[in-house]
Amino acid sequence: MPPVDTDAFLRDLYELRGIGTFKTGVHRPTYSPEDMEARRWLVAKLTECGLDTAIDGIGNVYGRHRGDGPHLLVGSHIESQNEAGWLDGALGVVAGLALARAGLSVDVCAFADEEGHFGIGLPGSRSIVGDLPEDAIDRARNRTDGTPMREALRAAGLEGLPRRQLEPGRHKGYYEMHIEQGTQLNNTGLRLGVVTGIVAIWQWRIVVEGQQDHAGGTTMAERKDAGLSAVRLLAAIDAEFPRICGERTTWTTGRFRLHPDAPNIIPGRADILFQFRDVSVPVLERLEAGLRALVQEANRRERCTITLSPVSKTLPAPCDPAMMEALSQAAEELAPSAWQTMPSGAGHDAQVIARRMPASMLFVPSIGGISHHWTEDTRDEDLALGVQVLHRAAERFLAS
Amino acid sequence: MPPVDTDAFLRDLYELRGIGTFKTGVHRPTYSPEDMEARRWLVAKLTECGLDTAIDGIGNVYGRHRGDGPHLLVGSHIESQNEAGWLDGALGVVAGLALARAGLSVDVCAFADEEGHFGIGLPGSRSIVGDLPEDAIDRARNRTDGTPMREALRAAGLEGLPRRQLEPGRHKGYYEMHIEQGTQLNNTGLRLGVVTGIVAIWQWRIVVEGQQDHAGGTTMAERKDAGLSAVRLLAAIDAEFPRICGERTTWTTGRFRLHPDAPNIIPGRADILFQFRDVSVPVLERLEAGLRALVQEANRRERCTITLSPVSKTLPAPCDPAMMEALSQAAEELAPSAWQTMPSGAGHDAQVIARRMPASMLFVPSIGGISHHWTEDTRDEDLALGVQVLHRAAERFLAS
Repeated sequence: MPPVDTDAFLRDLYELRGIGTFKTGVHRPTYSPEDMEARRWLVAKLTECGLDTAIDGIGNVYGRHRGDGPHLLVGSHIESQNEAGWLDGALGVVAGLALARAGLSVDVCAFADEEGHFGIGLPGSRSIVGDLPEDAIDRARNRTDGTPMREALRAAGLEGLPRRQLEPGRHKGYYEMHIEQGTQLNNTGLRLGVVTGIVAIWQWRIVVEGQQDHAGGTTMAERKDAGLSAVRLLAAIDAEFPRICGERTTWTTGRFRLHPDAPNIIPGRADILFQFRDVSVPVLERLEAGLRALVQEANRRERCTITLSPVSKTLPAPCDPAMMEALSQAAEELAPSAWQTMPSGAGHDAQVIARRMPASMLFVPSIGGISHHWTEDTRDEDLALGVQVLHRAAERFLAS
Repeated sequence: MPPVDTDAFLRDLYELRGIGTFKTGVHRPTYSPEDMEARRWLVAKLTECGLDTAIDGIGNVYGRHRGDGPHLLVGSHIESQNEAGWLDGALGVVAGLALARAGLSVDVCAFADEEGHFGIGLPGSRSIVGDLPEDAIDRARNRTDGTPMREALRAAGLEGLPRRQLEPGRHKGYYEMHIEQGTQLNNTGLRLGVVTGIVAIWQWRIVVEGQQDHAGGTTMAERKDAGLSAVRLLAAIDAEFPRICGERTTWTTGRFRLHPDAPNIIPGRADILFQFRDVSVPVLERLEAGLRALVQEANRRERCTITLSPVSKTLPAPCDPAMMEALSQAAEELAPSAWQTMPSGAGHDAQVIARRMPASMLFVPSIGGISHHWTEDTRDEDLALGVQVLHRAAERFLAS
């Protein structure tokens, strides 16, 4: 088996960067002319490598290997966030192309709209595993310009095409290479991350109901200040969570809104979105119990009423141990001591594909941890090392 | 001297409530047709009582007593907040009318736009003391619909009219009767509040600068979470201020905004408006020192940078002791033990007029503490008691 051609791999990446270029990044929102041009570019490239390739009714580009199994599925996504980076998604797709070119028995897929331009989580990978009902597509609209997803599919020439499903039993596993989108590798000087799992995100809405009053006429003793009760609860979480979290748990208050949010008015309501992420369900459950206890205690102590309700609870997607082991061995061979295992804090198509087959991911460093911005970048030598490790791991895992 | 006619006083109040009626309240924004109708109604009423009355170039309605001095000035404002209560402002103006009808040597003034529809603080009273430059009017716009103040003055027929100034030496003092706009009297069952002073408001902007990052890819150890640093500072204020405040100090975080305020993004910036109010300058200065120390400590401890800047610092306006004494004696005579002294937590025209003459205020209860809402109300017997106490106090103070 020939080694992977890292020069051709980098050439492909740079060629794809030329489609929908925005400064040093790209602007290829899902189903835009630039995105469709990139999908057609991928069809041509995969076809050149001998794969049977087509775009399906959700926009998934699928290249099917013609030879015998066992087969791997390799992929990621090809559209970008608005005015964003050149590697996010494109890297994993072009890595799949490189493995196909090297002659491995791989199918390659670019899953549509991983970036969620139409407000549906991971529609491309959900479609291929049979978990995207037609009415979800009917309802979806572009979050930037409001265009209905149906209209965008029609304009992109995809209306009425069938949506491809995974062939049961065909694949031994799924590999996805991706930029880290964090600063762990960048800050430690390591060059590769073997992903242990994709974290679950448990998102909560916390609503604090108090009494809106004039900030001048209401004494401190009389107030029901929803903002203050919210601050006290968040301060209690800040004190408690470090005691009960896992090693790599994260928790974030991303949204905090006061009503009416006016300088001279005591807030009558505070509206908070709070989330925590971890790969371990027991840890997630411990954090939920901790959060519920803090809210209960706040409702005993405060004059305001606090309501906690779950917004969404995803399942963690642990990576397949044998596929991880293949990646770890390849990493140690090609970059001794310059790699680590780590969870993925962000969501990826791999978490959906993992419901149907073993799945695993490989991270390369993000310079400065930047992603979802046109300055996103990774050094060429790290990109090349990544595809070499992926290639060797795939080869080994297929042979196992 | 005849006693004050409380029936006529209540009739006037109810008549005025019929202009711009909104549910059980009124909608009379400054210079609207309904507001101008109310001003013309007041001109007619004051003229009936024998006062030389006119509307000036800022919309102030001024009724000048024709007889000899010493004179008092009595008043408040006649416009309302949008869809607001029937008594806020109107009460003090109609009380002035009642004192004029009773034959006291009073001038009566309805100061324009105390409610700040054009974004200028207290323009009517500032105009009459000579502290409202033309260019402030040039720049002002209606906060609801953006209409320039000049255009609104023209449409109201006030363009080009001179703006009346106080006559130096004419007045022995200023009395303003007002609803409490708080729950102190309501909750204690007391019927009158003799105001000790109008609190100063020291408003601060607190900006916390962190680093916006993906909530999944950034470990807790790496984050610079501006929202979290803001919560810690506000929790520290919540712990410290009760130790250093005065007896009636209030402090309020009315506005708290995160950027970008998105569920999956670590906030890169928090933008806070924080204020405290007190009648005592030494207390205000102690609170400022405490706040500055907490911000300094947060800048030592947190990973984010916190900037504190003053937005506005008003001066407290202590009420005149002799005028307060006249009110207290009258209150004790007419409502023994059913009154208290108290600061005004809200701003009033009295704080501007107090720069030119002794000033004092009398509060009547707000049912449920409600103001700036159409459900605002006060019992008729409390309104009647208030005007009787004001009348007796004015008589006594004029004779002193």
